[in-house]
Amino acid sequence: MDIPILLDPRSRHPLQGQLYEQVRHLILGGRLKPGTSLASSRALATLLGVSRNTVMLAYERLAAEGYLQMREGIGTYVSFELPEDCLATERLTPACSDERPCVVSRRPIAFEGRAHGVVNDGQLTCDFWLGRPDPHSFPIRAWRRLVNRRLLGAGARLTEYGEPAGLIELRREIAERIGPARGIDADPEQIIVVGGCQEGLNLTARLLLREGAVVAIENPAYQGAANLYESYRARLVPVRVDDNGLRVADLPEDGVVLAYVTPSHQYPMGFTMPLERRLRLLDWARRLGAYVVEDDYDSDFRYRGAPFPALMGLDRHDSVIYMGSFSKSLGAGLRLGYLIVPRHLVGAARTAKTLLNNGHPWLEQAVLAEFLASGGYDNHLRRIRKSYAERRDCLLDSLRWYFGEIVVSGSECGTHIAWHLGASLPRATLMRSLAAERGVGLHDLPSSAACDFGGCTYSERTLLLGFSSLDERQIRGGIERVAAALDPAHGSLRGLTRPRHPRPTTYVAP
Amino acid sequence: MDIPILLDPRSRHPLQGQLYEQVRHLILGGRLKPGTSLASSRALATLLGVSRNTVMLAYERLAAEGYLQMREGIGTYVSFELPEDCLATERLTPACSDERPCVVSRRPIAFEGRAHGVVNDGQLTCDFWLGRPDPHSFPIRAWRRLVNRRLLGAGARLTEYGEPAGLIELRREIAERIGPARGIDADPEQIIVVGGCQEGLNLTARLLLREGAVVAIENPAYQGAANLYESYRARLVPVRVDDNGLRVADLPEDGVVLAYVTPSHQYPMGFTMPLERRLRLLDWARRLGAYVVEDDYDSDFRYRGAPFPALMGLDRHDSVIYMGSFSKSLGAGLRLGYLIVPRHLVGAARTAKTLLNNGHPWLEQAVLAEFLASGGYDNHLRRIRKSYAERRDCLLDSLRWYFGEIVVSGSECGTHIAWHLGASLPRATLMRSLAAERGVGLHDLPSSAACDFGGCTYSERTLLLGFSSLDERQIRGGIERVAAALDPAHGSLRGLTRPRHPRPTTYVAP
Repeated sequence: MDIPILLDPRSRHPLQGQLYEQVRHLILGGRLKPGTSLASSRALATLLGVSRNTVMLAYERLAAEGYLQMREGIGTYVSFELPEDCLATERLTPACSDERPCVVSRRPIAFEGRAHGVVNDGQLTCDFWLGRPDPHSFPIRAWRRLVNRRLLGAGARLTEYGEPAGLIELRREIAERIGPARGIDADPEQIIVVGGCQEGLNLTARLLLREGAVVAIENPAYQGAANLYESYRARLVPVRVDDNGLRVADLPEDGVVLAYVTPSHQYPMGFTMPLERRLRLLDWARRLGAYVVEDDYDSDFRYRGAPFPALMGLDRHDSVIYMGSFSKSLGAGLRLGYLIVPRHLVGAARTAKTLLNNGHPWLEQAVLAEFLASGGYDNHLRRIRKSYAERRDCLLDSLRWYFGEIVVSGSECGTHIAWHLGASLPRATLMRSLAAERGVGLHDLPSSAACDFGGCTYSERTLLLGFSSLDERQIRGGIERVAAALDPAHGSLRGLTRPRHPRPTTYVAP
Repeated sequence: MDIPILLDPRSRHPLQGQLYEQVRHLILGGRLKPGTSLASSRALATLLGVSRNTVMLAYERLAAEGYLQMREGIGTYVSFELPEDCLATERLTPACSDERPCVVSRRPIAFEGRAHGVVNDGQLTCDFWLGRPDPHSFPIRAWRRLVNRRLLGAGARLTEYGEPAGLIELRREIAERIGPARGIDADPEQIIVVGGCQEGLNLTARLLLREGAVVAIENPAYQGAANLYESYRARLVPVRVDDNGLRVADLPEDGVVLAYVTPSHQYPMGFTMPLERRLRLLDWARRLGAYVVEDDYDSDFRYRGAPFPALMGLDRHDSVIYMGSFSKSLGAGLRLGYLIVPRHLVGAARTAKTLLNNGHPWLEQAVLAEFLASGGYDNHLRRIRKSYAERRDCLLDSLRWYFGEIVVSGSECGTHIAWHLGASLPRATLMRSLAAERGVGLHDLPSSAACDFGGCTYSERTLLLGFSSLDERQIRGGIERVAAALDPAHGSLRGLTRPRHPRPTTYVAP
């Protein structure tokens, strides 16, 4: 048998696998024809310098799969049962390579989409990266205790499929504890547990959109939402935001299927939509028969006054789909969020979730349900809310100390602020690169998964600063390094000589 | 203040929340006009028989949200800043109720879809339910140990977003350990971790389908796949299966974008596609420029001979998307599966997964990666493979004992068999109800998430029996009860008097 076989003992693939593959390809490629006798395992082992067992195992696998026949007393030969035309096909259509380009003519795939940035590369020593809880704040001891308790009695919960809409204990806790805190009176049936807000967005798209459907979206907006709706071939109509959030009066008066909004803390600008505009938005939805997707991604953190009721809490016409998330309050690594859907959409939403992925992993849901029920979640929220408020104050103080009067938005709520850069400061993109040179991450809109559709005045002169994952020392140090980085570019900074201001400047409309 | 407020002390909603809600609705409904003075908190508390604090808290929340103004020395009154037209809108569009039907005119939602059965209601004492691992077989001690170890050093893994395509350690283990076992040589980059096969199907639909795209699908087929592709408005072309799986020669010769197949163990019939037909299927895909979605849902369990290489392992033209799952080998409650995509689809698949849900929860992935790396998974598989083989033998023995010569398919692989009912037995639907009356779950195609598109000969006379989650005593007892249930309907059963046969009957073509 004069066949080209070359085994590589340093490869991560076992020798028997290499031998199997090469013989198989020789057969499929027609180099080894049906009926051809192969060397005995002993002879081939000697020839190749491998153990006889290696050859035996490869031969046995090839025989089990029908490539070879092994007959006692006769020997091993290539199976006759491989039909000649199959082999010919294989010979005529060899694998693609540079020398032989692929002969498959294929339409372009249907999918067209862009991904938003998800993973932070973590190169910077002090990164005002957005929307991340402090890793040290994760209630790891309580979580481990609950994980162990739930695993102990897990049994079939790990092996069986659960309810696709989510674990009923968890949905009950969300309906009873979180709903009322947002002014939403929902049954557990209206809650669909999802793998974070992004999956929630997906379900809204699946439920409501067909190709060409018109989606009204904030400008600027969360990139993940814009990209998602675009990937479903929706036609996006960007509507500008001002310091009261989405300019409801600018919404088209017909044809819109859904409006995507972040009324608690507009992403990225941080504006809060006041009551009047909320009511106008709901009235608009009623007039058009449109749906409003309310992304309430970080409303757990409100530092001044009570939170406004969610749009869904104000809605009396079943127009709102509410999305909540535990990514900001606990952690994005859990991939836990929920939709609250109007009653008439419960069946469709459950079906869409079933078809999507048959539901969320059990353990995270079970542990979160118990964490909520035990009051552990409320305690956790109180603790981090306090700590985030201090960090926010520290950030605002530091900015004022080094930069004097500053204009910011979004500081009353959430885990990031938008810093509207005055005329005496460089543009956001330059600020960002100057800071990065000193190891400090400041983010302009494009680097914050924020999407500017054009015609929006914020992009050039807005920096977004997340404060939840840095401690106060890091925050002060980071802003100091930014100030130092700017010095050559910016001349002497007024702020460097200013006394520390006792109270932070909060929102002033740009 | 003569306003109708009625608090219910027995409600699950706190009194202050009830008060808040009712005053808010009175304001929005126009019953309390801007400028109206409200009773002092003390007076209202007395009037309602609640604590003053309850009223204070409700008033404060209403004030924070802009409904009320509280001025020292003046008192509490309804805010003037609620614009009159908003209030009028609310008055003109009251909540929907039976007396006042909703005035919203709304298009039907875009989504049209049916859900396959996911949750087993678990009413039967002995249920030959399909595709479930034995809950007792879950490697709970090893899993708990790994969970604890990973949680200990978790830190930012719980709070940050991870790589949407999946944890690199896990993808590496899948590429290096599982790929070769299926004859697939893939890079970790080609692996996309998904929430079970259903999510994998979703990604294939997102990647490849537009409205009206033609999908070739097995007949009968897995209902979850049929429903999913249908919900994307694909046009399904059912192609019959015979005892060699999908009849490749019956595939349309043009226009098909994707063919969905289960070649290792056809769902539901259990047929294995032989090598020749696999090669013909790949050749068909090459000619049409179509993709093949290979759902390899339970190929971990092969009881005779080596497994055939997966279609993807045979494919030389990048036409195959492979789907694997840990739902059968570990448990569906983990929601863990993976796609292996051809290199040219890696970017699009990662983007689609990012837009879908930003990736899978971290903990399950991290624990599974370590379970694979430690060899624990291989040991686990070996153990349950042995136990499932014994259960399969027991099931086949029991069927022969009570029913004589039987015709089954699918017994060489997987966790269920298809029992082709002879003419002397009732039809599958009747068998199913007779068994259910005795507390035994036998499943016909419709109750097994299997979809018969018509024109397929199997539905009437096929029962599907999962054997992986019942022990041998249960299996024997269950089949005995079925035989007893049949006795009146079926006359005397031959099998009852037959001696026990030493070897089970395995597959015989129907």
